[in-house]
Amino acid sequence: MNELTHVNEEGAAHMVDVGSKSITERVAKATSTLETRSDVLQLLQKAADKKGDVLATARIAGIMAAKRCSDLIPLCHPLALTGVSVDFEVCEEKGSIRITTECKVNGNTGVEMEALTAASVAALTLYDMCKAVDPGMVINATHLLEKKGGKRGHWQFDDANGV
Amino acid sequence: MNELTHVNEEGAAHMVDVGSKSITERVAKATSTLETRSDVLQLLQKAADKKGDVLATARIAGIMAAKRCSDLIPLCHPLALTGVSVDFEVCEEKGSIRITTECKVNGNTGVEMEALTAASVAALTLYDMCKAVDPGMVINATHLLEKKGGKRGHWQFDDANGV
Amino acid sequence: MNELTHVNEEGAAHMVDVGSKSITERVAKATSTLETRSDVLQLLQKAADKKGDVLATARIAGIMAAKRCSDLIPLCHPLALTGVSVDFEVCEEKGSIRITTECKVNGNTGVEMEALTAASVAALTLYDMCKAVDPGMVINATHLLEKKGGKRGHWQFDDANGV
Amino acid sequence: MNELTHVNEEGAAHMVDVGSKSITERVAKATSTLETRSDVLQLLQKAADKKGDVLATARIAGIMAAKRCSDLIPLCHPLALTGVSVDFEVCEEKGSIRITTECKVNGNTGVEMEALTAASVAALTLYDMCKAVDPGMVINATHLLEKKGGKRGHWQFDDANGV
Amino acid sequence: MNELTHVNEEGAAHMVDVGSKSITERVAKATSTLETRSDVLQLLQKAADKKGDVLATARIAGIMAAKRCSDLIPLCHPLALTGVSVDFEVCEEKGSIRITTECKVNGNTGVEMEALTAASVAALTLYDMCKAVDPGMVINATHLLEKKGGKRGHWQFDDANGV
Amino acid sequence: MNELTHVNEEGAAHMVDVGSKSITERVAKATSTLETRSDVLQLLQKAADKKGDVLATARIAGIMAAKRCSDLIPLCHPLALTGVSVDFEVCEEKGSIRITTECKVNGNTGVEMEALTAASVAALTLYDMCKAVDPGMVINATHLLEKKGGKRGHWQFDDANGV
Repeated sequence: MNELTHVNEEGAAHMVDVGSKSITERVAKATSTLETRSDVLQLLQKAADKKGDVLATARIAGIMAAKRCSDLIPLCHPLALTGVSVDFEVCEEKGSIRITTECKVNGNTGVEMEALTAASVAALTLYDMCKAVDPGMVINATHLLEKKGGKRGHWQFDDANGV
Repeated sequence: MNELTHVNEEGAAHMVDVGSKSITERVAKATSTLETRSDVLQLLQKAADKKGDVLATARIAGIMAAKRCSDLIPLCHPLALTGVSVDFEVCEEKGSIRITTECKVNGNTGVEMEALTAASVAALTLYDMCKAVDPGMVINATHLLEKKGGKRGHWQFDDANGV
Repeated sequence: MNELTHVNEEGAAHMVDVGSKSITERVAKATSTLETRSDVLQLLQKAADKKGDVLATARIAGIMAAKRCSDLIPLCHPLALTGVSVDFEVCEEKGSIRITTECKVNGNTGVEMEALTAASVAALTLYDMCKAVDPGMVINATHLLEKKGGKRGHWQFDDANGV
Repeated sequence: MNELTHVNEEGAAHMVDVGSKSITERVAKATSTLETRSDVLQLLQKAADKKGDVLATARIAGIMAAKRCSDLIPLCHPLALTGVSVDFEVCEEKGSIRITTECKVNGNTGVEMEALTAASVAALTLYDMCKAVDPGMVINATHLLEKKGGKRGHWQFDDANGV
Repeated sequence: MNELTHVNEEGAAHMVDVGSKSITERVAKATSTLETRSDVLQLLQKAADKKGDVLATARIAGIMAAKRCSDLIPLCHPLALTGVSVDFEVCEEKGSIRITTECKVNGNTGVEMEALTAASVAALTLYDMCKAVDPGMVINATHLLEKKGGKRGHWQFDDANGV
Repeated sequence: MNELTHVNEEGAAHMVDVGSKSITERVAKATSTLETRSDVLQLLQKAADKKGDVLATARIAGIMAAKRCSDLIPLCHPLALTGVSVDFEVCEEKGSIRITTECKVNGNTGVEMEALTAASVAALTLYDMCKAVDPGMVINATHLLEKKGGKRGHWQFDDANGV
């Protein structure tokens, strides 16, 4: 593939016609990581231990953002997602929280953008809740982990691909 | 500050009452970087040279996402943004595109989340347009660059702060 | 069923995977009742007699809310509704307006939440239009009336079920 | 007041001009109650004890709905809410969960609809999470509790007002 | 003025910074006309005589679209509209329905786009309801009628300006 | 057809039940024309030559509006569009820009409203970017060009149909 599919031969953006692609089960997993100071992580952990609203808020934000993906990303197709999950892994030594998302659809185009949007918005929501303590947090390593379904089949992120 | 402001003493999330904070001009700048292969960057550049829709699409996505920030981030306050800009810097040797955003408001709370959301959604939109060629792209270094206004005044990101 | 389907074994919320459920025609009917003073009801009736905008406004609000249900209820699946109707029954002696809604879809999950959201938002819209006259109105008896389709088949609300 | 403010003399609906009303701090509190079986309440409680996502999901849904109120209720004015909170009180003997919401704004019109919308959507979200176990749940007693600010000043719901 | 304000000197689109413009009362009126066959107009009239839902549906669509204008028009500023009205004038001999809208705000930028969006969406909604009978309807003469407020003051559309 | 399908026999608006209509590929094309002064057209052209953001902004606005059509037009069905394109033709002698849109879906109802909404919002977006120079621009001739699919098959706009 040596052309961008989302622009036509004259360089004009369009929403690619996927009407003739076959409907298969499509799955995508993505990730994003919020890096912060260890004291912020402890505050998050402490809040989470009490009632859990901190992680739940980021989780719900991620799930809702996945559903609104085609409303945010201009050339994304609207899709009737059949499942979305958002998980968190707190890594205390690195001072980071890693988000992992999974989206599913039976459709004629993939759900990569939905999974990535869920991960990004979950990370931004965590940032929002901690920014009064540490505005210097950084969101890193937002990328696709894996996708299945469609003509190209299974794809996995290769940590060694030099990015 | 040793507590998260967005959860109360019982750990319940709420939208913090900012009604008594003073209204000042507030500005926030944020950044995010899409890292990809040099051949993808060349395709982007080639498309941009023709008609410009590729970067314009990401720019418009970022601006619109800034306006919809409080709809995406659960505990963000709705704000009548007075200005938004989104810029791109293509760095060919690194194989990356760096996004820089700026949001402004005359309000009683800051626009950090708006600037960060604009940067994230612009990066995701670039990803979307290039993903058929390189699904292994990574979005890195999404963070606040600077903010002004409000009680705490001027803050700048410190590249050396160990994150 | 002795577990909540919307949280996993660790208590984390997710959008349940319905991708393997069969696609059938699904129908749901719901209701909600706005209770007010008889003089407010007369004002509503008088306005409705002139031009009808009062009930039409609530009807349109209910229909549009049904379409936006998955955007409001965090764990609801996006669904391509095939039909929505919203009806009103003014009961002068009780001083109440009863709303009845019906939603339809050919899908792999039901439309109960769409019908309930339509009924709730229609009731809130009536409240909004009358609140300057009577802020003490109460919305009662918002519940599902009936649903059809899917594995569990037909279900009807039992007025005598003690709720 | 013997006319509905939201329709003009010909019965046509409009968004009332509030531009000349003075800007004051306005607060509104509302409530709604989900009534269910005691076994469902125990499942909710059990899930809440584990991780808290059940109540947090409803809380976030309510807060986000308050922000989107003018998008749902046709004749509501868009408002820059300065604070929103949503609380829950589980009443085991009655088999019910009572939701209480509070919204604040510095504006030229009140936030009653925002508080009521938050309460309704929080109740619907709880319904959604429990409906597989008990579709017969009922949402009752959705009403305003109290409002402050504006020309009319303080108003409180009177439980004995015969509704 | 010999440059487009919405693009900077390099041609990049941005949301113009209006933060330093003074806050004044701003009003805009706009219009749009749906032209159809006389038999379609009679059907509309007949339906309107029964219950009024036809015109009310278009009116509500227009009002809600005005509130969502900054979500649709990429470089529009979010504004807290203080008033919106949408009116219809059926002209039987011409076979047309003329829509007139008015929007108001106390703000630092005008509401022309809000008034125009309300008129356009009201016209599209009428089209939607009649399209099964006459898909050949045309929406013409969508333009601003008048605007007040802001630095440039009063402006009125000149029917004779040769457009 | 001698009745409006969107209102029932009592004149009440509803979202027509399309669940039993067959799923076919449906295509609709629409158009809208912005008429302005030749000096404004030259500014647009000049801006477009530099970077292209002007037309790209209107294009993206049109594509995103097509996806949000059922959220704007009250009785429109939500549809999973499979393709959207928006094109521009600058006609210097007439002082006008003509927009042409195309929408596609595999569904049980047509995409006329999506194509018309895309054309209208693209025209409004061009208006927005030029309004500081010429507020007297007029949007004319917004209509359907052609539609395919469904029971009624192919339909084309007839320029000579007297509208």
